[in-house]
Amino acid sequence: MVRIGFLKMGNIATAPMIELLLDERAEREDMEVRVVSSGANMGGKQSEDVAKLMVSLQPQLVFITSPNASTKGPTKARETVAAAGIPLVVVSDGPKSLLEELGQKGMGGMIIEADSMIGARREFLDPIEMALFNADVIKVLSVTGVYNIVYETVDKLIEQLKRGEKPELPLMSVSREKAIRAAGFTNPYAEAKATAAYEIAKRVSSITVDACFKEKDWEVYTAMCAAAHEMMRTASLLADEAREIEKFGDNVLRKPHYDDGSYLRKRKLKEKPIK
Amino acid sequence: MVRIGFLKMGNIATAPMIELLLDERAEREDMEVRVVSSGANMGGKQSEDVAKLMVSLQPQLVFITSPNASTKGPTKARETVAAAGIPLVVVSDGPKSLLEELGQKGMGGMIIEADSMIGARREFLDPIEMALFNADVIKVLSVTGVYNIVYETVDKLIEQLKRGEKPELPLMSVSREKAIRAAGFTNPYAEAKATAAYEIAKRVSSITVDACFKEKDWEVYTAMCAAAHEMMRTASLLADEAREIEKFGDNVLRKPHYDDGSYLRKRKLKEKPIK
Amino acid sequence: MVRIGFLKMGNIATAPMIELLLDERAEREDMEVRVVSSGANMGGKQSEDVAKLMVSLQPQLVFITSPNASTKGPTKARETVAAAGIPLVVVSDGPKSLLEELGQKGMGGMIIEADSMIGARREFLDPIEMALFNADVIKVLSVTGVYNIVYETVDKLIEQLKRGEKPELPLMSVSREKAIRAAGFTNPYAEAKATAAYEIAKRVSSITVDACFKEKDWEVYTAMCAAAHEMMRTASLLADEAREIEKFGDNVLRKPHYDDGSYLRKRKLKEKPIK
Amino acid sequence: MVRIGFLKMGNIATAPMIELLLDERAEREDMEVRVVSSGANMGGKQSEDVAKLMVSLQPQLVFITSPNASTKGPTKARETVAAAGIPLVVVSDGPKSLLEELGQKGMGGMIIEADSMIGARREFLDPIEMALFNADVIKVLSVTGVYNIVYETVDKLIEQLKRGEKPELPLMSVSREKAIRAAGFTNPYAEAKATAAYEIAKRVSSITVDACFKEKDWEVYTAMCAAAHEMMRTASLLADEAREIEKFGDNVLRKPHYDDGSYLRKRKLKEKPIK
Amino acid sequence: MVRIGFLKMGNIATAPMIELLLDERAEREDMEVRVVSSGANMGGKQSEDVAKLMVSLQPQLVFITSPNASTKGPTKARETVAAAGIPLVVVSDGPKSLLEELGQKGMGGMIIEADSMIGARREFLDPIEMALFNADVIKVLSVTGVYNIVYETVDKLIEQLKRGEKPELPLMSVSREKAIRAAGFTNPYAEAKATAAYEIAKRVSSITVDACFKEKDWEVYTAMCAAAHEMMRTASLLADEAREIEKFGDNVLRKPHYDDGSYLRKRKLKEKPIK
Amino acid sequence: MVRIGFLKMGNIATAPMIELLLDERAEREDMEVRVVSSGANMGGKQSEDVAKLMVSLQPQLVFITSPNASTKGPTKARETVAAAGIPLVVVSDGPKSLLEELGQKGMGGMIIEADSMIGARREFLDPIEMALFNADVIKVLSVTGVYNIVYETVDKLIEQLKRGEKPELPLMSVSREKAIRAAGFTNPYAEAKATAAYEIAKRVSSITVDACFKEKDWEVYTAMCAAAHEMMRTASLLADEAREIEKFGDNVLRKPHYDDGSYLRKRKLKEKPIK
Repeated sequence: MVRIGFLKMGNIATAPMIELLLDERAEREDMEVRVVSSGANMGGKQSEDVAKLMVSLQPQLVFITSPNASTKGPTKARETVAAAGIPLVVVSDGPKSLLEELGQKGMGGMIIEADSMIGARREFLDPIEMALFNADVIKVLSVTGVYNIVYETVDKLIEQLKRGEKPELPLMSVSREKAIRAAGFTNPYAEAKATAAYEIAKRVSSITVDACFKEKDWEVYTAMCAAAHEMMRTASLLADEAREIEKFGDNVLRKPHYDDGSYLRKRKLKEKPIK
Repeated sequence: MVRIGFLKMGNIATAPMIELLLDERAEREDMEVRVVSSGANMGGKQSEDVAKLMVSLQPQLVFITSPNASTKGPTKARETVAAAGIPLVVVSDGPKSLLEELGQKGMGGMIIEADSMIGARREFLDPIEMALFNADVIKVLSVTGVYNIVYETVDKLIEQLKRGEKPELPLMSVSREKAIRAAGFTNPYAEAKATAAYEIAKRVSSITVDACFKEKDWEVYTAMCAAAHEMMRTASLLADEAREIEKFGDNVLRKPHYDDGSYLRKRKLKEKPIK
Repeated sequence: MVRIGFLKMGNIATAPMIELLLDERAEREDMEVRVVSSGANMGGKQSEDVAKLMVSLQPQLVFITSPNASTKGPTKARETVAAAGIPLVVVSDGPKSLLEELGQKGMGGMIIEADSMIGARREFLDPIEMALFNADVIKVLSVTGVYNIVYETVDKLIEQLKRGEKPELPLMSVSREKAIRAAGFTNPYAEAKATAAYEIAKRVSSITVDACFKEKDWEVYTAMCAAAHEMMRTASLLADEAREIEKFGDNVLRKPHYDDGSYLRKRKLKEKPIK
Repeated sequence: MVRIGFLKMGNIATAPMIELLLDERAEREDMEVRVVSSGANMGGKQSEDVAKLMVSLQPQLVFITSPNASTKGPTKARETVAAAGIPLVVVSDGPKSLLEELGQKGMGGMIIEADSMIGARREFLDPIEMALFNADVIKVLSVTGVYNIVYETVDKLIEQLKRGEKPELPLMSVSREKAIRAAGFTNPYAEAKATAAYEIAKRVSSITVDACFKEKDWEVYTAMCAAAHEMMRTASLLADEAREIEKFGDNVLRKPHYDDGSYLRKRKLKEKPIK
Repeated sequence: MVRIGFLKMGNIATAPMIELLLDERAEREDMEVRVVSSGANMGGKQSEDVAKLMVSLQPQLVFITSPNASTKGPTKARETVAAAGIPLVVVSDGPKSLLEELGQKGMGGMIIEADSMIGARREFLDPIEMALFNADVIKVLSVTGVYNIVYETVDKLIEQLKRGEKPELPLMSVSREKAIRAAGFTNPYAEAKATAAYEIAKRVSSITVDACFKEKDWEVYTAMCAAAHEMMRTASLLADEAREIEKFGDNVLRKPHYDDGSYLRKRKLKEKPIK
Repeated sequence: MVRIGFLKMGNIATAPMIELLLDERAEREDMEVRVVSSGANMGGKQSEDVAKLMVSLQPQLVFITSPNASTKGPTKARETVAAAGIPLVVVSDGPKSLLEELGQKGMGGMIIEADSMIGARREFLDPIEMALFNADVIKVLSVTGVYNIVYETVDKLIEQLKRGEKPELPLMSVSREKAIRAAGFTNPYAEAKATAAYEIAKRVSSITVDACFKEKDWEVYTAMCAAAHEMMRTASLLADEAREIEKFGDNVLRKPHYDDGSYLRKRKLKEKPIK
C-alpha cells in the first residue's frame, strides 16, 4: 500500500480532479491518498503550514498543486516537503522556466499550459462565475488528453513506488502534441477540434494575465475577463463536440482503472474492457 | 480570523468547489481554510484517520462532504469530529432522512439532491468520463442556484463565528424552489430552463442507483450509465442556456465576495458591484 | 377488410397520430378506419355520446384514447363499447393501476407513460403553446420507440382479426426498456440519448400534475408549467439528436407498411425496403 | 351551445390539431365538437360514408380537412354535407384555385399553403418518419401564425352561430403576410426568422410533389423526399428559434381561451392574462 | 502558359472566389490570371471601360461575372469582348433565358441559380450585412457542389486552350442535381441536407427581388430583406451541417489542384491525395 | 468623381470584399473603382505587370492587397505604383514591422492581424476548403469590426481626395481594441464573444504558419491545418453568436452608405437610417 499526498494551495482546474482521476470508482486497493489544502489562499505562511501537515502524514510522494509555482507560497511548500526528504512533483500552470530549477533540485514538475488563469477581478468574478470557468476548463483538460497525461504520469510513479523503486520524477510541460496523442482519437476531425479547443484554452491566459495584472481601467479589464471566459466556454463546447464525434462513431476510448491500479481498455460502448 | 475545516471523503460534485466558493479570488482576510481528504476512498478506517487529522487542526467548524452520508466512513468521520466538540455540518447527496438524526445529535446537515450519483460501473466510468460528469454537475449546481445556497449558508456560519456566536447549524435539503430563488434570475424563461435543468439533474440518480446497485446484466447497466450521463450533459447544456439568456439581457447576477467576507452585488457587466 | 374504430376524448400526444401510424402513406387495402371524437371535451355525457356513435359503426375492435382513463368520461365510453360486445383497448397516459381492472373486465389497455400531461393552466397554455407541446411529445414518442410499440401492437390485433381469430387484447405499460428496444438503434449513444429523452419526457408529468392540481399560487404554477414544457422541449431536441446520430451513420431503421399491412424493413437510405 | 363538426380524411398537419386549438384546456362551455374521420384513407366511398355519418350528427357547421381538396374523396364529402344544407368550410393544402368554385357554391375554404405535402414514398416514409414530419410542420404552423389564423377564423364563425347569425364563410388562402401578422411578434428578427421558416416550409411541397408524382427513379425520389424532410426540419428549428427570441425578451404572446370562447391576452410570463 | 481573364462588374457571390478556386494554393504553373473589375458599379459606361481594359490584356478566354446579365452594363461588356474576337463565358445569377441568346452569338454562359440576389435596400443593407450575406452564400455554394462545377468547367476550358483546341464554351444552368452530384457526398443525409440548403438558397431571390423591385412600403421590404437573409443564414448553417456529417465519417472529398492544373483526390484526412 | 484603384495579388480575406464594402448597394455617385488582380499568383513578374496596368488607369489612390507584404511581388507592386507618383496604401496580414518602412517611404499601410493565413498544404487545401475558410474569416472580420475600420479608413481618404486635399495615409495595425470599438456593440456579452472570436481568429496564423513553413511531416501538418480551420470555423460561429445577441435585443448597428459616400445610421430594424 503506497501513500500519496496531494498538497494544494490556490486553485488550478487540474487540482480539484487530480486525486479523483487515480481512482474514479473508488475501487483501488493498492494505494492510499491524502489531500491537504489551504483553500484558495496560497500565502507563504498558510502554504508552509499545510506543507508541514502533509509532511507529518509521511507520504511516499507528494504532488503540490498551485497556480504560478514560482510565487512565495508554493515555493515555501516545496521547500518544506523537500526538507523532509519526501520526493515531490510540482503541478502548476507555470512558469515553464521553473522546470529547470526543479530538476536541479531533484524535484519533479508538470506544467499544464492549457490550464489557463481565471479572470480574477472583483467586477467580474463571483463564486458562480468561478465555478463555471472551472467546469469549462475541466471539460477541456478531460477531452484533449491533458488529464490522461496527468493520471498516467502519477500512476507510473505509484507503480515504481509499489515495486520499491525510486520514483523517476517527471519534468515536463504538457504540450498540445502530447496531450492530443494521449487522448487517443480515432476520427481525425475529432482530433482537429480537440486540438483547436486546446489552443483556444491555452490562449485564454494571455488575456487574463493582462486583465488581472496589467490593465488598470476597470471597464477594460472587466470586458477582457468576460472575453477570456467566453473563449474558455467556446473551447469547452468544442471539446465536447470532439467527444461527440467519437460517440457518433462508437469509438470513445475508455481506460478504467482496475483494482490493482492497472488499466483496462475499450472502445465500443457495449463491450467489456480488457487489459 | 476564523478557521474552517473541510473534511472530504469520496466525491460529490459539490465537494471540489465548496471551499473555493467562499473565496473565489483568494482575497478574504477574515478566515482561514483547511481541507483534508482521503481522496475517492471513503472506507471506515480512512475516514476516521482523516477526521482525526482534521480534529488536530482545531478548526472552529467542520464541513464533512461525502456521498451517501449514512454509510460507515462518513458516519465514523462525524462521530470523530463531534467527539472532539467541534461543530460540524454534513454535506451530502443523501439520504434526506439523515437530517433528523443529525439534528438530534446537534449536527448540521445539507442534502444536495441535484448532486446526483455518477454512473460508477467499470464498463463505463474511466477517469475522463468521471471528470466530464463532474464538470456537467458543477455547471448545473452553479447556474441553478445550488452553489449560492451552499456558500451563503457557510458564510452565514462564518459570520456567526466571527461575531463570537455559537453557529446555528443548518438542517436543510436544498430543494428546487430554494435553489432557483437563490439564483436570482430576471428572465422567467431563464428560470424555467434552469428549473428544468435542476429536475433533470436530480432525476439522474434514480437511473444511476439502479445501474450501480440493482441491475446485474452488464450490457443493461452500461447502457443505463450512458443514458444517465447524457441526461446530466443535457441538464448542463440547459443550465448554460439559462445563463446565456441572462447574458443576452445583460442581467447576470454577480455577488463577488469582498475582503471582509461580505457580498457585493451587480447585474450589468459594465457596472461596479456595490454592497 | 377489417374495420377498426378509434374513439378519442380529450387529448394525449399519442391520439392525433395513432390511426395515421397504421397507414402512413394511405396505401393499405386490408382494413378500414373510423375515428370519432368529442374533441378536447372528455365529460361523461359527451364521451357516452361519441361512444354510442362508435358502436353504431360496428367496428370489430375499438381503441379508446384519452388522458387519465380512470375519470368518468373514458369510463363511460368503455362501458358503452363493451356493452355492445365490441373488443376494446384503452390507450392512455395512466393510471397504470387501471390495467388490472381492465384485464378483469376482458378489456385491453396500453399505458403510455412518456406521454406526459400538458401544463394546462390558463395563465400559461394557449392554443399555440398546446400545439408546440404536442409537437415535442410526438417527436419524443416517435424517436424513442413508443410509437413503434403502439402501431405494432395494433397491427398484430388487426392480423388476428384478419385471420378470423379472437384478438388477444394487450395489457401493457409501455416502459422505457420496451420502447427503446422497439426503436432499434444501432449506435449505443443514440440509444443512450433516446433513453435520456424518454426519462425526461416521463418526468414532465410529475411537474405538470402538481402545477395543475396541487399548487394554488398562480405565479408558482405558471413557472412550473413553463419549466415542464422546457423539459419536454429539451427531450424533443435530445430525441432529434439521437435520430441524427443514426442519420450520420446511415443506419435509420425504416419499417414502412406494405399494402397488405405487413412491414418492409431497411437501414441504408438508398436501398430498397425488403420483407 | 353550438355544435361544430370536423370531418377529416387523409392527413395534413393542420388536421390533428384543429379542434384542439379551439379549446386548449378543455374548459369551454359554449360549444360542442364532433370529429369524424376515415383515417389516412381519402377514397370516394370512404369519404362519402364519413360525410353521411357527420350529417347524421346535425352539426351547425362542418370543417372538412384533407390534402388536395380537388380529389374525389373530399369532393364527395363536401357535396354530401352541402346536400344536407349544412354550412361547410374546406381546409386543405390546395389547390388555391378551388376557392373560386367553393365560393360560387356557397362553401367556405381555407388553403394552408405552408402545410406542405409529405414525402410519401415507400422507400422513405414509414410511420416514424411520418410522425416526425407532422411534428415539424405543427411547430412551423404554430409559431408562424398559421394556427392563429385557423382558430381565430373558426372562433369567429362560432361567435356568429352563437349570436344566431348566418356564418360568413371565409374564402382565404393563408398567406405569409397574414400568418406572420397574426403571430404578433415583438422582435423584428424573430419575425424575420419565422418568415423564413414559413417560406422554407411552403417550398417543401414543390419537392415532394415532384418526388411523389413525377420522378420515377426510386433512388432519385428517395433522395428528394429526404431533402424535403430536411427542409421541414430546418424550418421547424428556425421557427423554434423565433419563439426563443420572444422568450429571451419575455414577450411571448399568449391568447388563451376563456370559458365563453373569448380570448385573454398576455405577454410577460408572470402576468395574468386579461381581456 | 494560358492567359485567362476575369471581368467583373457588380457582385454575385461566385465572383469573389472564382479565380481563387482555380489555384487555391497559388502553385499552378500552367496558366496566368488577370482580373479587372469596376467594383460594385455595373453601369454601361463603366462596364465598357473595364471590358476595353480586359481586351487590351489579350487574354485567350474571358469570364464575365455580374448580377443579371441581361442589363446594360454586362451586355456592353460582352459585346466589347466579343468584338475583339475573344471567346467569353458569362457567369451570372440570371436570367436563364439569356443562355439561348448567348449560344446563338457563340458565347458561353453559366447561370448560378443558387447565387441569390442580396437584400439591397438602404434601410437594411450596410457594408457589414453585405459581407455577411456573401459569406453565407459562399458557404452554400462551396458545400453544395456549385463551386465544383464552376472550377471544373473553367479548368476544362483551360485544358482545351493548353492543348491548342478551340474551347467548347459551356451553356448551362447550374441545377441542384448537377451541383449535388459534383459535391460527391458519401452519406445520403449529408446529401439531403446539402440539397435542402441549395433549395433554400435558391428561393432567397424570390423574396429579395420582390423586396428590391416591387414592394414600395419600406417597413415591409425591410422585413422581407431581413427574412431573406435569415433564409440564407439558415442555408449556410445547413450546408455546414452537411459537411460536418462527412467529417464525422472522415469522408470529406478533397480535390486539390496539382501544379499542372490536374486534380488529385482524397477522402480520409490522413491520406495522401492521388491522381 | 474620385477614382480609386485596388491592386490585388494573392489572397487575404479582406481582399475579396474591400471595394464592395465601399458601395454595398452600388449607389454611390462620388467615386469610381477599378480593381486589377493577378489572381492567386503573387510572383514578382506578375505583380509588376498588374501594377503597371493599374498605373495606366491613373487612379488617385491605390490600395494594394496581398498576404505577407514583405515578399517580392507585393514589394515590386508598390514600388511600381509609387514610382508613378500615385499615393498608395498597403493592406496585408503582415508583417507589422513593415509599417515603419512604409511610413518612411510616404506610403500608407494597414495590417489586418485577424486575417490569418490559410492552411495551404496540398494534403488539406482544395478549392472548396479554401472558399469555406474565406467565408469563415469574412464572418469574423465583419462582425468584430475589422471591416468597419477598413471601409471607414478608405472612405476618409476618399473624402480628402474629394475635397482636393492630399490624403493622410494611415499607418495602422488593426488591433482587437480598435476593431471591437468600431463594431459598436450595445450588449457587453456580444462584445465579449466578438472579442473572443477575434482572438481565436488571430491565433490561427500561429498554427498555419508552422504547418506551412516549418513542419515537414505531412501527417502532422495536415492535422495542424485541420485544427487551424476548426479554430476559424469556431471563431466564425462565435462571431455569428455575437451578432445574434444584438438581433435578440434589436440593436444591430447598421451604417449604410448614402449616395454621396456619407453614412446613415440606425439600430432598430424597423426604423429609418438617419445621418
